[in-house]
Amino acid sequence: MRAEIISIGTEILIGAITNTNARYLAGKLAENAIDSYYQVTVGDNVGRLVETLETAAARTDIIITSGGLGPTEDDITLEALLRFLQKPAVLHQPTLRYIQKRLRLAGYKMSKLALRQCYVPKGSIVFQNFNGAAPGILSHIQRAGKKIWVLVLPGPPRELEPMFNTQALPALLSQAKIKREHFVVRSLKIAGFTETQVAERVPAFLKSKPPLTVGIYARPDLVTLKVMAKAGSQKKARQMADRTEKQIRKKLGSSIFGIDDETLSSAVGKILANRKKTLAVAESCSGGLLGSLITDTPGSSAYFLGGIIAYHNKVKTAELAVPAILLKKHGAVSEPVAEAMVQECRKRFASDYGISITGIAGPDGGTLTKPVGLVCMAIASDTGIFVKKMILRGNRHEIKTRAAHRALNALRLQLLQKAL
Amino acid sequence: MRAEIISIGTEILIGAITNTNARYLAGKLAENAIDSYYQVTVGDNVGRLVETLETAAARTDIIITSGGLGPTEDDITLEALLRFLQKPAVLHQPTLRYIQKRLRLAGYKMSKLALRQCYVPKGSIVFQNFNGAAPGILSHIQRAGKKIWVLVLPGPPRELEPMFNTQALPALLSQAKIKREHFVVRSLKIAGFTETQVAERVPAFLKSKPPLTVGIYARPDLVTLKVMAKAGSQKKARQMADRTEKQIRKKLGSSIFGIDDETLSSAVGKILANRKKTLAVAESCSGGLLGSLITDTPGSSAYFLGGIIAYHNKVKTAELAVPAILLKKHGAVSEPVAEAMVQECRKRFASDYGISITGIAGPDGGTLTKPVGLVCMAIASDTGIFVKKMILRGNRHEIKTRAAHRALNALRLQLLQKAL
Repeated sequence: MRAEIISIGTEILIGAITNTNARYLAGKLAENAIDSYYQVTVGDNVGRLVETLETAAARTDIIITSGGLGPTEDDITLEALLRFLQKPAVLHQPTLRYIQKRLRLAGYKMSKLALRQCYVPKGSIVFQNFNGAAPGILSHIQRAGKKIWVLVLPGPPRELEPMFNTQALPALLSQAKIKREHFVVRSLKIAGFTETQVAERVPAFLKSKPPLTVGIYARPDLVTLKVMAKAGSQKKARQMADRTEKQIRKKLGSSIFGIDDETLSSAVGKILANRKKTLAVAESCSGGLLGSLITDTPGSSAYFLGGIIAYHNKVKTAELAVPAILLKKHGAVSEPVAEAMVQECRKRFASDYGISITGIAGPDGGTLTKPVGLVCMAIASDTGIFVKKMILRGNRHEIKTRAAHRALNALRLQLLQKAL
Repeated sequence: MRAEIISIGTEILIGAITNTNARYLAGKLAENAIDSYYQVTVGDNVGRLVETLETAAARTDIIITSGGLGPTEDDITLEALLRFLQKPAVLHQPTLRYIQKRLRLAGYKMSKLALRQCYVPKGSIVFQNFNGAAPGILSHIQRAGKKIWVLVLPGPPRELEPMFNTQALPALLSQAKIKREHFVVRSLKIAGFTETQVAERVPAFLKSKPPLTVGIYARPDLVTLKVMAKAGSQKKARQMADRTEKQIRKKLGSSIFGIDDETLSSAVGKILANRKKTLAVAESCSGGLLGSLITDTPGSSAYFLGGIIAYHNKVKTAELAVPAILLKKHGAVSEPVAEAMVQECRKRFASDYGISITGIAGPDGGTLTKPVGLVCMAIASDTGIFVKKMILRGNRHEIKTRAAHRALNALRLQLLQKAL
């Protein structure tokens, strides 16, 4: 089975928005072992959309469109679809009732424009839009003796994604009689290594071919290895993924901080919560970003007490008792100052652990001996203080981001050591 | 003139990466008044790429491809290009020397794979890749008596974007004799209104047609109106944009906080720096995000002193002198607590202005009377305290983001009032 993704919208053609739907749908197709040779983007033009549908029908089994289902004049997907399918439109009563109810709740009356969204090609399977108005549509057409499936989805990602995942994909797989292969996809999240360093440690895995593949993806201070195992049963696929994960862990050890949706923040949080330990932070150049990352994890109030943002040097002295002489002698971005910051922070908040960050985020403020990107950080606990100095790459925001992630990872590694 | 963008790469077809090149190129084409009716993505397959080039040549004047120029076996763009153009490959000496030098500096020897990247179709204009190895190529072919231009670019955005902007686009415009129209694109950044509220205030502008168009784009707590003015001279285009901006400002007043690259953080920072005033923050549910946003602006050390992240209630009492009785009577998320937080914060940091935020970011912790998304914030200065309670939409991170932006905008509006 082969599918083609058609994205509809002039806003994509003029570069006003990034086409994230195509990536989402492509990823889902790949997970379900449905090949895809082409993706096409076309504007809000009936003639060109019909032509694009015809071209796709000649070379694919499944066509998936997104966008152009809104209530306004430039939403032309339904019109093109009717022309392509050569089917009449019928009023879909459940959609009519659903849209009427939505409008009533918002205090509006049914309008002629909203009524347009209640029509679907005769004989369609219709998916209710729980996050918007326009329904999804699954229909089909015969071409050269072959049945071509056409799945039509709304454009906004928050409408498209849940509709595709929970309604449209299961319906498509069952209607088109696609043997659902069993897949396990597992992301191993890695901190402390660059993409190249990870690749050098697992070269054979990166070359492996289906039914087991391993892909590598990098972001500032996060590398992900994505294991995809395919088998005749869920159990077998899981066993393959488990075996691969175990082998990769042997190569990468504790640099793997979690799987799938885990973040450095949640990984650190899990350990702290389990051990009923608390954390406080003292931030200079990161300006609050470390605290913000920590509190992005739900339930962080169980272990995160708070922190001091000591941006100005006088705040470092007044709030974090950093001696003025220390600032003068070593400068604000120095190991002794990072150490003084974390010590007072931990004392003030009476926390089990403390993290401090001080650095030069740029673009100005760098010198020959202290360049932009220089960051000093310290981790403190009752067993001592660990201080580290490093030079980080990137623009101001990237330096802040890398610094906060490095600090979280340093704490995580300390916590792991203590577990031994 | 009409252009078609072809993105090459199996990694796009399987959803491993988002196609940001298409958006970048589409935006640049739009700015230069070059129409685009289609975008196509095709995998690393010579036959299908040649077919895609042929289809494009039949319906467009300019073809722009990205990707597939790397040194490895699956990089097939050059092979497909030669077949499509029916031209032989020639060794491009300047590229050879450039790649040899790059490799030498990195301590490597010239390899057979790297040598592949030094060949280009005969008669091409070649663009050196200052951020990578593979050069860009501009060539052409006759089809049905028409000259079709083919521009071939490398895939990585950090190679493609500067090469296109500084070398390839100017060469294309001059070679294809495209009259460079004069454009002014100006983004008006708006806070405090939803997309619908903005649209209702400027309906006529949103319907305007070239040479002057106005588009509307929304993100959580930021709406942008993008004014595009086109004219025969730069001066005339600027006058059109100026006039439109003035008219829109009449409708939207102080909700417009800046233009183009300005952020709420930089807009607030500009006012504070000009008046030599200082700011400190007291954050609960935002966990440091407000401080982080403020310090994303270069030069923020001139006015931002720092803050207290008072996540745990005991920190609110210990560090921000919030009376325990107040917390017990009104709860941590309440107007009296926000007020107490900001007052002590401003006192402690001896700052001219203070901001406090306390709220329920979820997903847990909401109740019937205090639902997830409830946020109280306060702005303090020597003239008094302004407290506000609101319910914000979204997930945990969105609630934090909206809260921090609302607080920044509240401070901005206060600062503007004081200027009157």
